[in-house]
Amino acid sequence: MNKDLFDRGMKTRREVLGDAYVDASLAQASEFSMEMQELVTQYCWGDVWNRPGLERASRSLINLSMLSALNRSHELATHVRGAVRNGVTRDEIKEVFLQTAIYCGVPAGIESFRVANAVFAQMDAEAAEQEG
Amino acid sequence: MNKDLFDRGMKTRREVLGDAYVDASLAQASEFSMEMQELVTQYCWGDVWNRPGLERASRSLINLSMLSALNRSHELATHVRGAVRNGVTRDEIKEVFLQTAIYCGVPAGIESFRVANAVFAQMDAEAAEQEG
Amino acid sequence: MNKDLFDRGMKTRREVLGDAYVDASLAQASEFSMEMQELVTQYCWGDVWNRPGLERASRSLINLSMLSALNRSHELATHVRGAVRNGVTRDEIKEVFLQTAIYCGVPAGIESFRVANAVFAQMDAEAAEQEG
Amino acid sequence: MNKDLFDRGMKTRREVLGDAYVDASLAQASEFSMEMQELVTQYCWGDVWNRPGLERASRSLINLSMLSALNRSHELATHVRGAVRNGVTRDEIKEVFLQTAIYCGVPAGIESFRVANAVFAQMDAEAAEQEG
Amino acid sequence: MNKDLFDRGMKTRREVLGDAYVDASLAQASEFSMEMQELVTQYCWGDVWNRPGLERASRSLINLSMLSALNRSHELATHVRGAVRNGVTRDEIKEVFLQTAIYCGVPAGIESFRVANAVFAQMDAEAAEQEG
Amino acid sequence: MNKDLFDRGMKTRREVLGDAYVDASLAQASEFSMEMQELVTQYCWGDVWNRPGLERASRSLINLSMLSALNRSHELATHVRGAVRNGVTRDEIKEVFLQTAIYCGVPAGIESFRVANAVFAQMDAEAAEQEG
Repeated sequence: MNKDLFDRGMKTRREVLGDAYVDASLAQASEFSMEMQELVTQYCWGDVWNRPGLERASRSLINLSMLSALNRSHELATHVRGAVRNGVTRDEIKEVFLQTAIYCGVPAGIESFRVANAVFAQMDAEAAEQEG
Repeated sequence: MNKDLFDRGMKTRREVLGDAYVDASLAQASEFSMEMQELVTQYCWGDVWNRPGLERASRSLINLSMLSALNRSHELATHVRGAVRNGVTRDEIKEVFLQTAIYCGVPAGIESFRVANAVFAQMDAEAAEQEG
Repeated sequence: MNKDLFDRGMKTRREVLGDAYVDASLAQASEFSMEMQELVTQYCWGDVWNRPGLERASRSLINLSMLSALNRSHELATHVRGAVRNGVTRDEIKEVFLQTAIYCGVPAGIESFRVANAVFAQMDAEAAEQEG
Repeated sequence: MNKDLFDRGMKTRREVLGDAYVDASLAQASEFSMEMQELVTQYCWGDVWNRPGLERASRSLINLSMLSALNRSHELATHVRGAVRNGVTRDEIKEVFLQTAIYCGVPAGIESFRVANAVFAQMDAEAAEQEG
Repeated sequence: MNKDLFDRGMKTRREVLGDAYVDASLAQASEFSMEMQELVTQYCWGDVWNRPGLERASRSLINLSMLSALNRSHELATHVRGAVRNGVTRDEIKEVFLQTAIYCGVPAGIESFRVANAVFAQMDAEAAEQEG
Repeated sequence: MNKDLFDRGMKTRREVLGDAYVDASLAQASEFSMEMQELVTQYCWGDVWNRPGLERASRSLINLSMLSALNRSHELATHVRGAVRNGVTRDEIKEVFLQTAIYCGVPAGIESFRVANAVFAQMDAEAAEQEG
């Protein structure tokens, strides 16, 4: 493992997905999945997400559309949350998924709206709790 | 058919893909495929591409990532060209496809680079011809 | 939004999926997903499902096979129910999914049978309740 | 190999795809691919295509939609031709692919129209040759 | 149905997936899904899984990679268990899914590790129970 | 870029795919695609293909099944050749694609046999030329 690349990746991953999410993800990691955590943190977060050629909000738009096309709802939920942290508005997320409905088909659009609706409801509940 | 929506769609389609491409596409359209042309021009171009919530360059980024994920190389070539017309740089297109390689897998990334390389070579040849 | 197309689409959607399903779907629709509801109701239900060129039972067969191939089990369940409402028999649905197993692979076939089994069990329970 | 199932499959395959296509397919079959020919002829043509629960025209509609969703254009061309032999009209094929555009996305619809256009052009050329 | 092929398939299926799994699967089979059980047992288990050209451990590696690529997590769980029964080690399964992450994309890799983690936890619990 | 990882990757890539293929691939690489070459050589070849946990012949089996499932015929051809270099026999490749036909569907199997047939014909022609 390249320790330096891993550390840079972990920093970016925490900035995009939040400490709560990353801590939970690491806590769940078994010995079996530890090398997968290392691979993803280095190549995905340390390398590609840290490249300067596109701003993070744009990378979030790209991820939302790929995950919707690939039918990977679990990761999609994670990146809806990441998109908001990267400054993408809920209205912009809506635009991505309307475009998804046209290019990937109506079922992909419907599923993506369902996922985003659930994430937003959870985020609103968390915000209400913190305020309360 | 909704004539007004079709006309707005045709205008946007020509702006994004260029008159040469759209004229060729319409010239090829058989009686068999004419209603498909109408459906796409209305719903895809007249509606979604005309929505104000995202700028066209961002919609191009989204399309490149979806088409790469969906393995639709023919449409991908069309939208590489459209992305350039929408102000996306070649370097930004490179970033999209590096991210594709990580999220959709290396074969998707390789194929997308192959498609973009061919489009850029053709665009360069056209530019050289016009200058010559 | 094209109000006329939307209204025609809503009528067809209710005929195919039933009032109970559509009412629940609309009740769940957040402000975030309202435009998606409009897009789907117009283009999918108002336009394509209302075209006279194929009868609804045939459109249901087509949908079952596409949703099985696309691995979209949530929508597949909705359209298993819609297929029955459109006059497709359970035996015909079985034939679709056996063909799916050959052309989309055994895992697609197994998943589609699982989805249909669950829908039929629910429909039988509803029928028993109404009779009871 | 089950010789009886193979023979029934070969008969059905010839009825649906035509002698010219099947003869060419067998002539091309190398020693390497012979067992694949046997597998397909038995299970796909001998079993599923021979089941009485759905008529062949309906099986063709199902195949066109699955192959469009699966992005398998080579097989799609084969089954466009098979669909016509099974009595599906060109207008009905158009309806399938318009529905595909909505459920599998616009790029799937565009590709399927492109494939069908090419098959119809070839069929028209063959018909003109025979008449000439 | 070919009774002999079905019987050979059932034997192989029980050897690979275990009696507990197969008994549960048959107990759940409704009249609706019985012919699907027959199709899968004959062609998948009776024919392909019984071919001598590849040993079962290799066939398990192939299945894990296909099911990961196809995004079929339910079947993937079944075949993680089957792979272990066929002598594939947990470390080898880890290698398959790291390779999946590179070729099918990071979300496919993450999902496959999640599925395998859950299966291993369940297997460990069952082993503890038996020892207890 | 990690020069050491790149160099190890290039060595493995040359061993698996052959100098002729890799030289051609690098000669074609434009400035646009150079960073993609670096990403693939490092993470795919330098890391995963060099991991000791599975032998190369097994990694080839896995790749053939994933590429078949993902419908990436261009890369599939490259890895059919690589599989042979890794000691996989043509008969074993046949077994992989028969299993593909069952799990990914008949069209995936047919396409994979078509790709392999073309690669083998080319390899035989090259061998004849060298002998000649």
